[in-house]
Amino acid sequence: MTMNRRIVLASRPSGDPVAANFRTEEVPVGEPGPGQVLVRTIWLSIAPYMRWRMNDAKSYAPPVALNDVMVGATVGEVVSSRDPNFSEGDIVIGMNGWQEYAVCEAATLRKQDAEWGKSAIMLGVLGGNGMTAYAGLYKIGKPRAGETVVVAAASGGVGSLVGQMAKLKGARAVGVAGGPEKCRFVVEELGFDACIDHRAADFAEQLALACPDGIDVYFENVGGEVWNAVLPLLNDFARIPVCGVISQYSATEAPPGPDRTPELMRAVLSKRLEIRGFVLTDFADIGPEFYAEASVWHRQGKLRYKEDIHRGIDSAPDAFIGMLKGKNFGKVLIQLASD
Amino acid sequence: MTMNRRIVLASRPSGDPVAANFRTEEVPVGEPGPGQVLVRTIWLSIAPYMRWRMNDAKSYAPPVALNDVMVGATVGEVVSSRDPNFSEGDIVIGMNGWQEYAVCEAATLRKQDAEWGKSAIMLGVLGGNGMTAYAGLYKIGKPRAGETVVVAAASGGVGSLVGQMAKLKGARAVGVAGGPEKCRFVVEELGFDACIDHRAADFAEQLALACPDGIDVYFENVGGEVWNAVLPLLNDFARIPVCGVISQYSATEAPPGPDRTPELMRAVLSKRLEIRGFVLTDFADIGPEFYAEASVWHRQGKLRYKEDIHRGIDSAPDAFIGMLKGKNFGKVLIQLASD
Repeated sequence: MTMNRRIVLASRPSGDPVAANFRTEEVPVGEPGPGQVLVRTIWLSIAPYMRWRMNDAKSYAPPVALNDVMVGATVGEVVSSRDPNFSEGDIVIGMNGWQEYAVCEAATLRKQDAEWGKSAIMLGVLGGNGMTAYAGLYKIGKPRAGETVVVAAASGGVGSLVGQMAKLKGARAVGVAGGPEKCRFVVEELGFDACIDHRAADFAEQLALACPDGIDVYFENVGGEVWNAVLPLLNDFARIPVCGVISQYSATEAPPGPDRTPELMRAVLSKRLEIRGFVLTDFADIGPEFYAEASVWHRQGKLRYKEDIHRGIDSAPDAFIGMLKGKNFGKVLIQLASD
Repeated sequence: MTMNRRIVLASRPSGDPVAANFRTEEVPVGEPGPGQVLVRTIWLSIAPYMRWRMNDAKSYAPPVALNDVMVGATVGEVVSSRDPNFSEGDIVIGMNGWQEYAVCEAATLRKQDAEWGKSAIMLGVLGGNGMTAYAGLYKIGKPRAGETVVVAAASGGVGSLVGQMAKLKGARAVGVAGGPEKCRFVVEELGFDACIDHRAADFAEQLALACPDGIDVYFENVGGEVWNAVLPLLNDFARIPVCGVISQYSATEAPPGPDRTPELMRAVLSKRLEIRGFVLTDFADIGPEFYAEASVWHRQGKLRYKEDIHRGIDSAPDAFIGMLKGKNFGKVLIQLASD
C-alpha cells in the first residue's frame, strides 16, 4: 500500500509559528472517485499568505482547519485519473497542499504547458508569483515610464518580478531587502536600479536617497517599518497595491502608539493616494493576458529569478518558518520528487 | 473712495482656530487692469478644507500665506470689467475669498446660469458641494443598487448630497450626524434610510445595526472615531473615497496608541478595500456631466439641502470656528450683499 506523508495544522500559532504547530502524518493514499484524479506532488510552493491562513480569523479565504493539510500550490504528476481530461503522466498544477499525494477534483487542476520546461516555474515566474506581480503592478499600480516603483522582499518570489516588470515598462525600480547579499543580487542579477537594506540603521534616509523623485507606486507586501519609511516619500496620486503584510501576520497585538492612522488618512487626502488590497483570485481572468506577455519575456530571459529549494515534505515547516524571518533567498520551493 | 472689508490670516492656529487667528482690514477697492474684473461679493462659502489651508504644511494646495486674504469660493456681481467676456451686472462664481470686493483675473470666473435662480445654490447643490459629492461618490465610490453607503456630516453641504445621490442610484444611505435634531432632518427631510448620532455612547453598535448588510461605500469626510467604527463594518471590495478628515485638521499631535495602522492595512488586504483620496480639482472635466444630471434632479426637487446663513463678512470667522465644532446645521454661507 502506498503511503501519503502529509503535514497538517496541529495548533494555531500565537505569534511566530513554531514546529509544534505542524504535525506529520502518514496515511494510505486514497482512490480517486468519478471526476477525481490522484496526483503525486513534485513541487510545493511555500508562500507568506500561508501564515495568515493559520490564524482563526475572517479573511479573503477561510482559515486552514485544525488537523487539515496545510494549504499550498503544487505541481505534480497524474498517477491515475477518473476524469477524461487527465491521463497518467500528465504534469498538473493544483492546490494540493503540503503532502506527497492528493486525490483532488479534476476541475481544480490545470495541465502544464510543456514548452516551459522545468515544472517548478509554474509555481513561480509563470505561476502564482508572476500573476500576482503582474496583476498588482499593472492593474493597480499602473507605472508609467520614468516613474519610480518601490517593492519590498525584492529578492523573493513576487517582489523580484515586480521590479523587473516595472523596468519592462520603463519605470525606475527600487527594491528593499534584508542584508547586503540580497541587495547586491537584486541590483546586479535582477537589474533593479537600487536596493536598500531594511536592516540598516539609516534605512529611511537611504530609501529617500534612492528615490530622488519620490515614489509613484509602492507594491506593499511587508507592512510595518517599510511602510512607515515609504509613506513620506509617496508622490501625489501614488498607487499602493496591497498584496501582503508579512510583517504583521504573526502580530499578537497592535504596536505601541501613537496611532498613525490619522497621519495615513491625511496623506491619502493631501496626496490623493490610491490604496487597494488584492489577492490573485480577484483577477480570475488575467491568465491569458499574463501568459501571452510573460511567456515572451521568459523566453527572452527577461524575467530572472532565484529559487530557494528544500527537499522532502518534512522540510516544509522549517522552510516556511525561516521564510517568515527572511532567511530564504529567492522563491521557496519544496521538491518532493524528481522532475 | 469705496472700501473693501476683508479678513486675512493673522496667525496660524495651534489646534482649534480662534478669533485671534484672523484680522479684519479695510483697504481701498482696487482697479481692474487689462483682463481683470472687479467683483462685489454676494455670497461666500465656508467649508472645512479652509482649516487645512491655515496650516503651514504641504498639501494638495499651498497654505494661505500669513496676512493674505482667507481662501474661499464666492458668488458676486461684476462692478467693472476690463475683459470682453464679462460686463457690469454679471453674476459670477469665483474664488475671491473672505472679502467684500475683489479684483481678479477674468479666467478665474465663471458666469452663473440664470435659470438656476438663487445664486447661493452655485456654492452648494449646484456648485462645489454638489460636484464634490458627485465626483467622490460616483467616480470612486461607485455604489450599485442595493448597496449600503455611509456618510458622515450628513446634514452638511457635501454629506447631505452624498446620501441623496446614493439613493438616486438605488443604494441604501446611512448618515452620521451630531445630535438628534440633525439626525431627524437627515432622515425626514433628506430621505436617508437612517442617521446615527455620533455623540451617542453606543454609536458603533447603532451604526452596525443600521448597516445589517455591512458597508459598501464609506464617503470619508471626518476621520477619527467615525472611521474607527466604520472599518469593521466594511464589506469585501468596499470603496472609500476620502474627501476630508475634518476631525484631524486641528490635531496638534497623533492620538495615543496603540498604532492602528497595521490593523487598517490588514483590513485593506483581507477585504480588498479601495481607499482613494481626492479633491474636486482632480475632476476638472466633470462639470458638464455633473450639471447635466444634477440640474435635472434639482428641477425635480430631488436634491434637498439646508443652508446655515450668516450676515456680513465680520461673521465669517465665528461661522467657520463654529462649523469645525459641528455647530452649523447645513451648508455654511456668508451673505455680504442682497441677491
